[in-house]
Amino acid sequence: MQDTWSFTILGEDKRLFYTAEALRSLGHSVECTAEHLAECDILLLPVPVSRDGVTVNTADIRLDTLSSTVRRDCRVFCGMPRSEVSDLFFKRGIRLYDYAAREEFAVRNAVPTAEGAAEILLRTLPVTLRGARIFITGYGRCARACARLFTAMGARVTVAARRCSALAMANADGYNSVYLRELPRCIGEADAVVNTVPAPVLGETVLSAMRRNCPIVEIASAPYGVDTALAAEYGITVLPAPSLPGKVAPKTAGIIIADTVLNILREGSE
Amino acid sequence: MQDTWSFTILGEDKRLFYTAEALRSLGHSVECTAEHLAECDILLLPVPVSRDGVTVNTADIRLDTLSSTVRRDCRVFCGMPRSEVSDLFFKRGIRLYDYAAREEFAVRNAVPTAEGAAEILLRTLPVTLRGARIFITGYGRCARACARLFTAMGARVTVAARRCSALAMANADGYNSVYLRELPRCIGEADAVVNTVPAPVLGETVLSAMRRNCPIVEIASAPYGVDTALAAEYGITVLPAPSLPGKVAPKTAGIIIADTVLNILREGSE
Amino acid sequence: MQDTWSFTILGEDKRLFYTAEALRSLGHSVECTAEHLAECDILLLPVPVSRDGVTVNTADIRLDTLSSTVRRDCRVFCGMPRSEVSDLFFKRGIRLYDYAAREEFAVRNAVPTAEGAAEILLRTLPVTLRGARIFITGYGRCARACARLFTAMGARVTVAARRCSALAMANADGYNSVYLRELPRCIGEADAVVNTVPAPVLGETVLSAMRRNCPIVEIASAPYGVDTALAAEYGITVLPAPSLPGKVAPKTAGIIIADTVLNILREGSE
Amino acid sequence: MQDTWSFTILGEDKRLFYTAEALRSLGHSVECTAEHLAECDILLLPVPVSRDGVTVNTADIRLDTLSSTVRRDCRVFCGMPRSEVSDLFFKRGIRLYDYAAREEFAVRNAVPTAEGAAEILLRTLPVTLRGARIFITGYGRCARACARLFTAMGARVTVAARRCSALAMANADGYNSVYLRELPRCIGEADAVVNTVPAPVLGETVLSAMRRNCPIVEIASAPYGVDTALAAEYGITVLPAPSLPGKVAPKTAGIIIADTVLNILREGSE
Repeated sequence: MQDTWSFTILGEDKRLFYTAEALRSLGHSVECTAEHLAECDILLLPVPVSRDGVTVNTADIRLDTLSSTVRRDCRVFCGMPRSEVSDLFFKRGIRLYDYAAREEFAVRNAVPTAEGAAEILLRTLPVTLRGARIFITGYGRCARACARLFTAMGARVTVAARRCSALAMANADGYNSVYLRELPRCIGEADAVVNTVPAPVLGETVLSAMRRNCPIVEIASAPYGVDTALAAEYGITVLPAPSLPGKVAPKTAGIIIADTVLNILREGSE
Repeated sequence: MQDTWSFTILGEDKRLFYTAEALRSLGHSVECTAEHLAECDILLLPVPVSRDGVTVNTADIRLDTLSSTVRRDCRVFCGMPRSEVSDLFFKRGIRLYDYAAREEFAVRNAVPTAEGAAEILLRTLPVTLRGARIFITGYGRCARACARLFTAMGARVTVAARRCSALAMANADGYNSVYLRELPRCIGEADAVVNTVPAPVLGETVLSAMRRNCPIVEIASAPYGVDTALAAEYGITVLPAPSLPGKVAPKTAGIIIADTVLNILREGSE
Repeated sequence: MQDTWSFTILGEDKRLFYTAEALRSLGHSVECTAEHLAECDILLLPVPVSRDGVTVNTADIRLDTLSSTVRRDCRVFCGMPRSEVSDLFFKRGIRLYDYAAREEFAVRNAVPTAEGAAEILLRTLPVTLRGARIFITGYGRCARACARLFTAMGARVTVAARRCSALAMANADGYNSVYLRELPRCIGEADAVVNTVPAPVLGETVLSAMRRNCPIVEIASAPYGVDTALAAEYGITVLPAPSLPGKVAPKTAGIIIADTVLNILREGSE
Repeated sequence: MQDTWSFTILGEDKRLFYTAEALRSLGHSVECTAEHLAECDILLLPVPVSRDGVTVNTADIRLDTLSSTVRRDCRVFCGMPRSEVSDLFFKRGIRLYDYAAREEFAVRNAVPTAEGAAEILLRTLPVTLRGARIFITGYGRCARACARLFTAMGARVTVAARRCSALAMANADGYNSVYLRELPRCIGEADAVVNTVPAPVLGETVLSAMRRNCPIVEIASAPYGVDTALAAEYGITVLPAPSLPGKVAPKTAGIIIADTVLNILREGSE
């Protein structure tokens, strides 16, 4: 099993700065310019790799330039490539790895996501989190991390989910739990709502049952859990909170990228 | 949707006593004798339903008598029926439900299981759980509940698992984590080990690396994680801890049975 | 025992807004203007009651006007009055109560203080609080609340104090503990320091042993634990964090004022 | 400052076995027989040092023999000596130290005490501690440790105390709190009561308001919080739980004795 590798990292993303630092501290060699691209073994790109489908996110370089410059046996790591990006590389027979699709990447990033949500609540609510009643929709990785953190901080957490087994798990983990369909009946006691479901679960019947000063922190990616304009009609503030790990804890997020990429490389070389 | 039902409950299991109490407190009618078996709507039996495949566990009644007495539209709930038991009822066209196979049953019972393991550790270890180093093998439902509880009590928990994603999840949940194959290298610092894996994961290389006075609490069902005789050769005590929920918290366990059965009935009548 | 009272509250402090809300919700009558000052039973003023010793903090009214307007049997509640303020009222025989000097006021405000410190750390550190090594100096009320909260959030907390009994208590509460004099030896591993001691405990020997990117959150009131200019010479950032409760959780802080004042009134009327 | 000492330890107490082990592992020399008593520097005796005032607790040796055998400059450490014991030594000018009277001794022993109480509850209650409603009387060291531990385990803790400041502190620490005099009104919801007050705080009005199956764990020393015979009249079970540390965690308790004695010696030699 190979022990150390040579990386070229492109992108001004703060996380990648720390990814480079982490890789170097483990004895790998890291280059952060496009100068020797034609010879590089492993190319590491941001997550998402591109916002426009043409250039690399936070780097001034075109994806088609990249794909036509690197060697065919270069291994390219990036996050959340759309199909047009994948195609560019696959056409030339270059292996593309989506590190953001790995389970450990998602699981570990749930922690900074939850901390980011906590920071928003601490900054926004006029009451302490201690004693506050927080409703969390969904019970996936981010919801679990939020429920665990907020409860540890003294909040009274209620998990709202669709499936009976999710409610049982939330219950076994120590939280109150209700079916999503029961929200209109009990959401009125919430001091804040954190949505983790990428689907419109907070509709009019829910919004109309909420208190005016109860904000919704929107952690889900599109399609969102709540329509911001509709919420405004009910006097409810929606606090969008996309991509928290890179903002809240870029160093931790960068280390997670490094660890995930190394896991993939090690599994490949076993 | 029907709201209340009539139950006949057989078996002297302490849990079922509390199941009856819980069902009655919710307005259901409950009979605990076999007197009116021929007319009963819903028959509720223990988990496991039978130990010998012939009579009902903790009740003085034969399964073939039961299956030939109840009406064909009687719904029979029991836990962990072996195929010969299921066959008895299926042959007569009677619907048999295994409530112990439900996700929420397993998830919720992980809590009393963890408390039972904690009780054993508190009673056995000469040190406080606060500060003790506990190794937990596996990261399924019971392992998660144990890790969460022991950590809350101040122990330093290390989760040992086989898969990378399990380690990532254990890590994200806040525990140290190692691959099972790394155990021989680090198990020497453990004050106690809790095994939740029904497979021989604690073999000679692990046992020989452990301290003499480090006990193993065996929570897994057969096949077990450790060979008791082999452990004894290394001076290691194995503390068998089967079926903890019914022993540690029969009332909670009984309520879980009631809730699970009601869930199944409600889903069936929707 | 009297049940409800009439309050006049002066000061634009956000906390007092919520104090008024809380008192009203408990059935007391509250007026927030100086119009009927001459008849008022109970006068409630901010904490600190005055910054310049002349006018009421956040209100456009002079203290000597106040003291000469209210009735002699009016009870005046305020926070942290300096002696010149107390004298004004005492001279006229008016009873002045310092609600900020009450034990329950200080104890309960430690919670929003700790949450404020957590918010600063979440916002500032490039890593997650989970896993971060936080050193807390002192082990009074605020230190205890911080240690408890940060630990619950997954940080590894070390308490540094002067007295052996404080260390024992910190230890019994589940934290690492070191003598203040030992800080130079171990502070180098800190990701952040929170100072709660109003005395210069973080001098040159400590600063020179710290990592550059390890910030100091200054929660203590003057005299502070660290000299900001000196810290800057060592490349250390000091984050001043005075009066957190009113900023982080004005509603909770306002309720604490209401509860404390009511406690004093009830004890007086028993 | 002297670094290592020579100890003679008498008493078959399990804790002292571990005290000896801990002292030896720190490089001190330890003898566990009375053979060289006449030459010994430091004599370490159990807590309590004597049950009958005549012989050493768990050792077959008279106190007057001891006091007349050891050198005058021998330092004698013991726990909770009654005045007749102290007198024996003082008369001969021998310095007697009560290590059990030290703050750090009491504070640190609160942890195994709380774990012992948890073990009793886990073993006794038919429900899980998770979700159970536990009332704790008093808010001293043991009560605080219990409240912290039970809450971490998922119980809903209510602290009942006499003083307003104790309630505020319990509240700030995250628990429900009520005045002792309010107990009759709310004790009816308790699943268990843990008494830490050495005074009869659980009298008839409280007992008559409790549920039959709600046990009282008596952690306080005499005079106790509840009259066992009176409780029995109300169908309430009292579970006496004296001296938990030595039973639940003799190794931890032994280390605490070692640490405390060393603290005293170091302070004396500074």
